[in-house]
Amino acid sequence: MTNGNELIESENPMHPARLICELCRNFYTHGWVTGTGGGISIRDRENGLIFLAPSGVQKERIQPDNIFVMRYKDQEYLRTPTDLKPSACTPLFLAAYTIRDAGACIHTHSQSAVLCSLLFDKVFEISNIEQIKAMPNVTRPGHMKYSDRLVIPIIENTEKEEELEGALRQAIKEYPGTTAVIVRRHGIYVWGETVWKAKVYNEAIDYLLELGVKMKQMGIPTVKN
Amino acid sequence: MTNGNELIESENPMHPARLICELCRNFYTHGWVTGTGGGISIRDRENGLIFLAPSGVQKERIQPDNIFVMRYKDQEYLRTPTDLKPSACTPLFLAAYTIRDAGACIHTHSQSAVLCSLLFDKVFEISNIEQIKAMPNVTRPGHMKYSDRLVIPIIENTEKEEELEGALRQAIKEYPGTTAVIVRRHGIYVWGETVWKAKVYNEAIDYLLELGVKMKQMGIPTVKN
Amino acid sequence: MTNGNELIESENPMHPARLICELCRNFYTHGWVTGTGGGISIRDRENGLIFLAPSGVQKERIQPDNIFVMRYKDQEYLRTPTDLKPSACTPLFLAAYTIRDAGACIHTHSQSAVLCSLLFDKVFEISNIEQIKAMPNVTRPGHMKYSDRLVIPIIENTEKEEELEGALRQAIKEYPGTTAVIVRRHGIYVWGETVWKAKVYNEAIDYLLELGVKMKQMGIPTVKN
Amino acid sequence: MTNGNELIESENPMHPARLICELCRNFYTHGWVTGTGGGISIRDRENGLIFLAPSGVQKERIQPDNIFVMRYKDQEYLRTPTDLKPSACTPLFLAAYTIRDAGACIHTHSQSAVLCSLLFDKVFEISNIEQIKAMPNVTRPGHMKYSDRLVIPIIENTEKEEELEGALRQAIKEYPGTTAVIVRRHGIYVWGETVWKAKVYNEAIDYLLELGVKMKQMGIPTVKN
Repeated sequence: MTNGNELIESENPMHPARLICELCRNFYTHGWVTGTGGGISIRDRENGLIFLAPSGVQKERIQPDNIFVMRYKDQEYLRTPTDLKPSACTPLFLAAYTIRDAGACIHTHSQSAVLCSLLFDKVFEISNIEQIKAMPNVTRPGHMKYSDRLVIPIIENTEKEEELEGALRQAIKEYPGTTAVIVRRHGIYVWGETVWKAKVYNEAIDYLLELGVKMKQMGIPTVKN
Repeated sequence: MTNGNELIESENPMHPARLICELCRNFYTHGWVTGTGGGISIRDRENGLIFLAPSGVQKERIQPDNIFVMRYKDQEYLRTPTDLKPSACTPLFLAAYTIRDAGACIHTHSQSAVLCSLLFDKVFEISNIEQIKAMPNVTRPGHMKYSDRLVIPIIENTEKEEELEGALRQAIKEYPGTTAVIVRRHGIYVWGETVWKAKVYNEAIDYLLELGVKMKQMGIPTVKN
Repeated sequence: MTNGNELIESENPMHPARLICELCRNFYTHGWVTGTGGGISIRDRENGLIFLAPSGVQKERIQPDNIFVMRYKDQEYLRTPTDLKPSACTPLFLAAYTIRDAGACIHTHSQSAVLCSLLFDKVFEISNIEQIKAMPNVTRPGHMKYSDRLVIPIIENTEKEEELEGALRQAIKEYPGTTAVIVRRHGIYVWGETVWKAKVYNEAIDYLLELGVKMKQMGIPTVKN
Repeated sequence: MTNGNELIESENPMHPARLICELCRNFYTHGWVTGTGGGISIRDRENGLIFLAPSGVQKERIQPDNIFVMRYKDQEYLRTPTDLKPSACTPLFLAAYTIRDAGACIHTHSQSAVLCSLLFDKVFEISNIEQIKAMPNVTRPGHMKYSDRLVIPIIENTEKEEELEGALRQAIKEYPGTTAVIVRRHGIYVWGETVWKAKVYNEAIDYLLELGVKMKQMGIPTVKN
């Protein structure tokens, strides 16, 4: 029997443990988390809790019962499902929570992110595309403008996911205006103030990454002069 | 409490407030409105009402309760959902209603539309493709012929969506035979006499834009000599 | 009130009027019949009836009530839905029925078919692909072999769909081994002994057309020497 | 009447006969088994049974009633559905069971697998992509590392599926670290210790094959130096 079941049982479809399951199914249909790839965490600010999808499982088949729950203040697990391992992404999700006060963090193995990491060097850059307006300014209220340049840092991949933490933390600090970090030959981390903002940013970024790949293939610069 | 609830509550799945929700889910699966992009408005001629999806929300999660309702004759809002903003597309939808007497207007961030706006100059042109026969003549009854040339004007994008109004109105007037306007690096506006016609035109145009991108990539002219 | 309702009302999901609706939804998700494109007809040999999807409607929204029913022996309509027009494909479906004794005929605006019609001249040809084994020999029992060459004739499009009849009939006769005809810049007609065979052939052919486009793009011959 | 019905009737959605149906629908939406292509088998170790999808049917429409059941120890059919033929893949599935003690084997006509078989010679190779970590070491416990090279042998296709058995058995033995074999111009066989592992490996491999095709098209080596 797993303790802490009261933390994930709810009739409310907006409960973090249920939302994680719903969003994982959505990500699966986009091809972002096939083959157990990717992950997601939602933070419940009110109760000081962090909900985490487990490691190495089929994301589209996750049930609330499979969700880990951590206390935010001391990062202690309040709920550890039997036979499951915590996500290796956990320190990375925590980086977004502690450095940026994020409310949710999404990690995918999006092929567009991987391809952009092969086509771009230190950063992915794109400007003058309407979809950029879905992205936040981050360092000040409001959203980016159409002609703003969206810059997403690309960090090098490491053998173990946990080892990404240092580079990810550094990228977050070096690029105070970003709400995402691409990991070369790996995928992307996207966070936001709330789970819905994180979801929207992830969709908008993936749209821009996919478009960026197509523009590169056609010889069209992704940044307009 | 939001007033005007009687305008959006209905058991009828064909009610405009419910159709907007259904079509937004459909558009989401096509990848046309991810990341809060795009929008849709339906006009109820009988009751002189305009129904509008709100600004900046996840289109696939819209509920009838989120719908704005405007009186057509004086463009006054009869229903304004709490905590939501009217769509920035509203003046553009109104242009289609007032200049063309449209019954619905769809706006998407279709990647094929964006790519065509990068591959074509002043207009997107295609001819001798069967799918063109789904398009209306506009200036006279009936549909286009297979060998007709479909011409869709491309206008330049602006920082704010509202600022597109002038160029959109001008394009509508300069191209009396068009039922759509592409916005460069942004997306497309498509309208029709009814919501179903608008939906069909939007699907047929997107098919032609996608095909146009592929033909360009293969070095095949989109207009046959 | 439309007469002949008893011909389309059934609790049986395998009834032709219900199958047409189900298959049109399936085709829509494949992108084969968006924008009212395409069509399908099923023949009920036992009762000597032909069921036909109507012209110019959204295929994914068709209901049994929208289905036309024709008597095979004299090609007289037994059921004509109010406000709908018979499909312009009807003479083409009849060609497959009368010349080949088909049990169903599918017409799509598949982009892979259109692209192949632009990349190939008189016929689409492919060999040495396993999926070819899903195709019938037609002129003798059994299926094609892996190393057989699948040859699908390509006919020129005409302004009106009905005008295709002569060329389609000729192609069917000139290529006795084919169970499909591509129409240049238009789409494809695929038929089979039963509705399920027609569906399977259509899927297998579309797979091969899509693969053929990709092979052409990579400079790989579709026919192996 | 078909005997052995008690072997496939179950209220448990995790019963092999029901899982095969569910997974075939999943594979269909990925485009891996359209046109009757592909197949799947699950082994019930506890009861010494093998469940097999039938030959040449629409995979997305399979019902538990269509499933063949074989006794593992003497490979005798305990259940043979009326009017259906056993899958031609059966000897290949058995090779994975007997040589590798697999718990399930999946066969698809994945276009990415076919394309990779045209772009690569004796083996498909890829390294330094995070998704590789979803793959097992096979010859020792645990999963592959990010920088490991995934090597999947490619065997030549034969006229009849059964004839692949020799080459498949040889490839399995020559490549003790592989959990999949690509068949040139045909598709792929993927197996695993359990049905879920086989499903995950198949998804991860297909992701890598798709990425491999894109990398080749962009002139990026799939193996990092």
